[in-house]
Amino acid sequence: MDEKVFQKILDIGIALSSEHDLDTLLNKILSKAQEITGADGGSVYLVKKDRLIFKASRNCTLLKKLGAKKMNELVKTFELPASKKSMAGYAAVTGRTLNIPNVKNIPADEEYFYDPSFDKKYDYDTVSMLVIPMRNKQDEVTGVLQLINSLENGKPVPFKESQEKIISSFSSQAAIAIENAALNDLLEQAHFDTIFRLSEAAEYRDKETANHIKRVSHYAKLLFEKMGHNKEECKLLFWSAPMHDIGKLGIPDAILQKPGPLTSEERAIMEQHAAIGALVLKDSAIPVIAKSRIVALTHHEKYDGSGYPQKLKGEAIPLEGRVVALADVYDALSSKRVYKPPMPEEKAIAILKEGAGRHFDPLLVKIFLGEMKKIKEIR
Amino acid sequence: MDEKVFQKILDIGIALSSEHDLDTLLNKILSKAQEITGADGGSVYLVKKDRLIFKASRNCTLLKKLGAKKMNELVKTFELPASKKSMAGYAAVTGRTLNIPNVKNIPADEEYFYDPSFDKKYDYDTVSMLVIPMRNKQDEVTGVLQLINSLENGKPVPFKESQEKIISSFSSQAAIAIENAALNDLLEQAHFDTIFRLSEAAEYRDKETANHIKRVSHYAKLLFEKMGHNKEECKLLFWSAPMHDIGKLGIPDAILQKPGPLTSEERAIMEQHAAIGALVLKDSAIPVIAKSRIVALTHHEKYDGSGYPQKLKGEAIPLEGRVVALADVYDALSSKRVYKPPMPEEKAIAILKEGAGRHFDPLLVKIFLGEMKKIKEIR
Repeated sequence: MDEKVFQKILDIGIALSSEHDLDTLLNKILSKAQEITGADGGSVYLVKKDRLIFKASRNCTLLKKLGAKKMNELVKTFELPASKKSMAGYAAVTGRTLNIPNVKNIPADEEYFYDPSFDKKYDYDTVSMLVIPMRNKQDEVTGVLQLINSLENGKPVPFKESQEKIISSFSSQAAIAIENAALNDLLEQAHFDTIFRLSEAAEYRDKETANHIKRVSHYAKLLFEKMGHNKEECKLLFWSAPMHDIGKLGIPDAILQKPGPLTSEERAIMEQHAAIGALVLKDSAIPVIAKSRIVALTHHEKYDGSGYPQKLKGEAIPLEGRVVALADVYDALSSKRVYKPPMPEEKAIAILKEGAGRHFDPLLVKIFLGEMKKIKEIR
Repeated sequence: MDEKVFQKILDIGIALSSEHDLDTLLNKILSKAQEITGADGGSVYLVKKDRLIFKASRNCTLLKKLGAKKMNELVKTFELPASKKSMAGYAAVTGRTLNIPNVKNIPADEEYFYDPSFDKKYDYDTVSMLVIPMRNKQDEVTGVLQLINSLENGKPVPFKESQEKIISSFSSQAAIAIENAALNDLLEQAHFDTIFRLSEAAEYRDKETANHIKRVSHYAKLLFEKMGHNKEECKLLFWSAPMHDIGKLGIPDAILQKPGPLTSEERAIMEQHAAIGALVLKDSAIPVIAKSRIVALTHHEKYDGSGYPQKLKGEAIPLEGRVVALADVYDALSSKRVYKPPMPEEKAIAILKEGAGRHFDPLLVKIFLGEMKKIKEIR
């Protein structure tokens, strides 16, 4: 193996290790494996107990023939049993690499066989295959990399032994990167679950349903997406929104749970929940807490300056506050509460329209009303 | 570079990528770098803005001479400005590798110079040095690896050009691994901060100080450590303990904040907080939530079976519940509250002793009372 190849494998390892999003990573693994071997196509499977989860697939020929949209439909996640019958299953169960010059010539007495249904369905001609188990640090097979048709001058040829060797170095790096991305996912999930659990708990006294905060988060994220914010920003808002009413913990039962209308004095106390929330969440270097502080503080401001606690006006209200204000009010209107049925859709829409420029940012109302189909799905 | 060396670098890259604890990782980076270059010693610095943070150091000769304890004192974290004057600073600022055959022969007109104070202090003889910037994916220098005295037959010789080359491949892998471990740290910190913030918020109505839950977590962790639980288990309990009273969100103000003693009916409602907490935290696959559910449910059980809600007895009470019960009561006794001063130490200890076998697990009381010095530090 020459130094150039060596450097390339190192570079790929580094590129893989710095990718933390699992789906992006799996696609990167495939494209790099194609680059190294000249393979026309390939797939990645992850091993989960006794199942193989098909996670990513790429195929240059089919991409040209079918287009990106059709190709995407083709790579929907599916599962198969990790048995020796399929080639990926064989690699997963035995831990052995399969380097098959021509899948049509697999002897009938082999434990695995080639399933031609894919070729038939998409009018593709699979010839050579390289199927490599991916092992983690504990030497367990955690995934399988399956490459199809090594091309030379556009014609499928068998994968070379040298390619097999390189790709197996590569596959160990890929396995670790996958584990790291999965760990990252797990940490994020744990964090997110905690935010939701505890925010739900905080709404307990308010007799809000757990689903209220979930819906508000989804509406807020949808608005952010439609405004063109990137994935990270949308996620940050999605995670911050649940804590918008955390300050209600500081409001006495007698006011929070009063059945009739509040007196102006009681209302003044009730309105303190925005500032109390900001207090609870103050001074954090953690992005999600810092953002949730802004949301808690400003989600009762109104666009015309008649809100609370700071009577901010228009664009002076942080965007996150404007977004959650709209999401929160819409959810209150459109949901069933113990004391009221859900409001009919047209009436809720009319209230948002009427509130545009007064209660709500008119641009946000416009975007929101343009997404009623997705909003219904969320609801 | 031959194939064996290549394989070794790949293996090291994999070993580094799978280490998520930053301190362990930095030590691993050093030991692997020593292995590759035959260096007698070395240090790792991380770049934070315009400072270099000294994070890890190893030296075989000094370890033999001074012993592990003295050596540990030597590697306390310190900072220096990232200026060209120090060799590590020079590598950080310029991004250049320094391969110095003999530090005593550095020309006087160089921008950097060798500081002999370390040698003098520890009677060590630094001769050759290899100082390598570590770069992240964005090609920014995020750390510096400094190796001392490449040994051949026990004698310091200059670092070879081939070693320099290998170590610079290695250093890119190390840089990514450091970034990943730091990201992991950040995610964990964010999660932990959220748990504390929201648990604190939940105690708001109870007029507990924020520090109550922090102390309980620390006491509980200390007990777990002394019982020999591993780092992960201790951390899990430390993170779970804050949520032990989350169920108080379900208790009305009239009972939770009643100044005088509770009637038996009120007490029955108050005691529901354990079950409510378990309800709020139920059915989670997230370890910290699942564990906190157990803590919330069982931290008012008593060793003799007279506790609530399940009247569990002895070892039938989950260990986490027994641990948090002791930590929680001790903190209530030993802290100042609005309605009482802190109890004198001897009296708090007497109550724990008296409660051993009745309220508390006697083994835990014994361990706890053996750690009064650390407990005072926490307090």
